[in-house]
Amino acid sequence: MAKHLFDAFTVQNGTEIIQVYGRNKNALSYFNNQINTTSDLSNIKEADIYLVAISDAAISEVSKFLVAKKGLIAHTSGSIPMNALPHKQRRGVFYPLQTFSANRKVNFKEIPICIEAENEDDYKLLNELGSAISDKVIQLDSDQRKALHLAAVFTNNFTNHMYHIAQEICIQNDVPFELLLPLINETATKIHDLSPLDAQTGPARRNDAGTLEKHLAQLKHKNHKKIYALLSKSIRKTYGKKL
Amino acid sequence: MAKHLFDAFTVQNGTEIIQVYGRNKNALSYFNNQINTTSDLSNIKEADIYLVAISDAAISEVSKFLVAKKGLIAHTSGSIPMNALPHKQRRGVFYPLQTFSANRKVNFKEIPICIEAENEDDYKLLNELGSAISDKVIQLDSDQRKALHLAAVFTNNFTNHMYHIAQEICIQNDVPFELLLPLINETATKIHDLSPLDAQTGPARRNDAGTLEKHLAQLKHKNHKKIYALLSKSIRKTYGKKL
Repeated sequence: MAKHLFDAFTVQNGTEIIQVYGRNKNALSYFNNQINTTSDLSNIKEADIYLVAISDAAISEVSKFLVAKKGLIAHTSGSIPMNALPHKQRRGVFYPLQTFSANRKVNFKEIPICIEAENEDDYKLLNELGSAISDKVIQLDSDQRKALHLAAVFTNNFTNHMYHIAQEICIQNDVPFELLLPLINETATKIHDLSPLDAQTGPARRNDAGTLEKHLAQLKHKNHKKIYALLSKSIRKTYGKKL
Repeated sequence: MAKHLFDAFTVQNGTEIIQVYGRNKNALSYFNNQINTTSDLSNIKEADIYLVAISDAAISEVSKFLVAKKGLIAHTSGSIPMNALPHKQRRGVFYPLQTFSANRKVNFKEIPICIEAENEDDYKLLNELGSAISDKVIQLDSDQRKALHLAAVFTNNFTNHMYHIAQEICIQNDVPFELLLPLINETATKIHDLSPLDAQTGPARRNDAGTLEKHLAQLKHKNHKKIYALLSKSIRKTYGKKL
């Protein structure tokens, strides 16, 4: 996340990155040539905003070292509430809703950035910061952000696991997984126009018991069977079919 | 499916549609102005290929009415084996792997068309037919196609259901579902470069028990809790974490 934010802010002119802090000196090598870095918490420079882009578990602990600062402290986590930051500081959240992988560029312009602050001035500041890299900055409170993060687990983590199981089925049956890529794309694109509720197709949606039974028999892994059964049941329930 | 195939074949010159049969006269109105139609099985014209694009359950039954024909009979189903067609006929399968909705255009050029036949000549014929509308025609036998269809249930039906649950969570918490669309796109696009196994992120992948517990507590529907628990367990298992 830190690297992706750094890259996004580096290529535009409205903001200036003053320093990158990192506990691990090796992890700082990426930034070293481009900007001042430090791995010493007592050496952190003055800035208008401190973006705390670290693991959820470390946010409370690390942000304590910023209590002497006047700038706004904002973490970048979906699931951690704003009040995990030190109480007497100016606090905020700057949460880009996207999945980040080390070696994959993302287009920040399209990434919603969910901001939270304690007063209008800080909202304005975070909005300015977000607008420098994204066309979509939105105010969400901690509860809304937490819900969004949970919804993102379904649309990203669980969806990707569906892809993984599909790949396992393909490998077991000597079918190229690549054949599924256009279907995967269309499934994702379709819901820009239709609600997922209306976009649903397939044997569970049709309540086609014969196909459901055949599919269950066809699956080799007990785990895949369980998932198939539970999700099919949930789809049938959604469309009001008797179970 | 029949409409989508009709539209795709209509706009190119390599093939000619001779007639559309449909049991239901009203359903034929879409084709009436453009082509000869019939709802009388005894009125079916001679053709090189008969595409049986109907519900799985009707394929065996309806294709029996084509036993006097010399042309190749091909159904368009993913899960029905080729030998569900009448044994003494020239038989084949022409299965476009995509999700079709009535009012949504799809780009056939990118849709894999999985073909099966009983001899080289019929393979050649189906390959020609497929190549007229798609850049990706591939030979798969009935077992492979059945596996692909099952994998497609995971990547399309179940994935769409994940989107639906995410939307329910958003509605319950007053968060715009649209915020998730860029994430949904990136999740689908990412696996063009990374395997789903490598693309996996999230609390289950990290074995972050604290977040998993908080998420379970946050979910309001018993059904959503069950799905969250089962899929998280499956992800943890995939990455070899102790359960």
